[in-house]
Amino acid sequence: MKQSLGANTLAQPAPVWLIGSYDAAGRPNLATIAWGGICCSKPPCAAIALRPATYTHGNILQRKAFTINIATEAFGRQADYCGIASGRDTDKFAATGFTAVKSELVNAPYVEELPLIVECRLVQTVEVGGHTQFIGEIVDVKADSAILSDQGIPDIEKVRPMIFTPVIRTYHGVGPYLGQAFQIGKEL
Amino acid sequence: MKQSLGANTLAQPAPVWLIGSYDAAGRPNLATIAWGGICCSKPPCAAIALRPATYTHGNILQRKAFTINIATEAFGRQADYCGIASGRDTDKFAATGFTAVKSELVNAPYVEELPLIVECRLVQTVEVGGHTQFIGEIVDVKADSAILSDQGIPDIEKVRPMIFTPVIRTYHGVGPYLGQAFQIGKEL
Repeated sequence: MKQSLGANTLAQPAPVWLIGSYDAAGRPNLATIAWGGICCSKPPCAAIALRPATYTHGNILQRKAFTINIATEAFGRQADYCGIASGRDTDKFAATGFTAVKSELVNAPYVEELPLIVECRLVQTVEVGGHTQFIGEIVDVKADSAILSDQGIPDIEKVRPMIFTPVIRTYHGVGPYLGQAFQIGKEL
Repeated sequence: MKQSLGANTLAQPAPVWLIGSYDAAGRPNLATIAWGGICCSKPPCAAIALRPATYTHGNILQRKAFTINIATEAFGRQADYCGIASGRDTDKFAATGFTAVKSELVNAPYVEELPLIVECRLVQTVEVGGHTQFIGEIVDVKADSAILSDQGIPDIEKVRPMIFTPVIRTYHGVGPYLGQAFQIGKEL
């Protein structure tokens, strides 16, 4: 017998992604979000949701682009800071010590120090209640060689992304390998 | 200096969610997805993406509802199975041993054995390339008391949700607590 917890955002796990964008003056900004995910395989697309009040919201509408910089354990404090401060009155790159790199493919900056980044071109804007969902086509993924597997694919045990739990607002790391998808269920 | 990995779905981490739906004949079905996330706080909404070829796609369009059943470590094989088999020719509840419970709030079933479930009423359908994104307003979250914290909130260390890594297709568990969001970055 289950208990009712009411209408809320208690689905889990959620990602911790730093969204890179440029403002009208060309200043790079970062916003940490947990409302997002992949939303299409072909073409590869990601969806992120932001409130219109955020500085990044206006930046993405104007520049038609954003980057997703995967927050990692090693940069937990910096990632959290970028979800607290606003780019309206703060240079978050200066405050965190992060280096902004201008993407050659989309009109947005990414974080040199974070090992896995995703460059997105805005393709759809969807209003959902108090949030706007920005759907970006992924034009490239870039990674530090240190986090790649022998097959050249980002290894989650090397990336060490953070995991967010809504409502209770905790960060966790990645735990043990459990098995291969499309494989461990075959015996059923 | 980062390496280019091309345009693909390498963002991480991704969730492992079993989507519960009824078909036209009233048979309950489950589909495992990784393309999804919360997309709005007020009202609380979640977005999930499915290909039109899937059985669940038609079910959701017809019933205007779905449930999100959080896959947990203890049910990894069952969760993986529900991403391999199709509801067109398989009774996945029978094959997994899961019990289908009819939601009293939305026209969809949920899994009794999974400890955390989210009931959604379809509010928007967004076509994104080869996928359809279904946006559901969360009308209730239900949980087993065993996974609740002292404050009555699902504790991720008790839920033990699975984490999916796209492309390399691995499942991992949840790792150590890293800190409190909107807190650990304050010192910067």
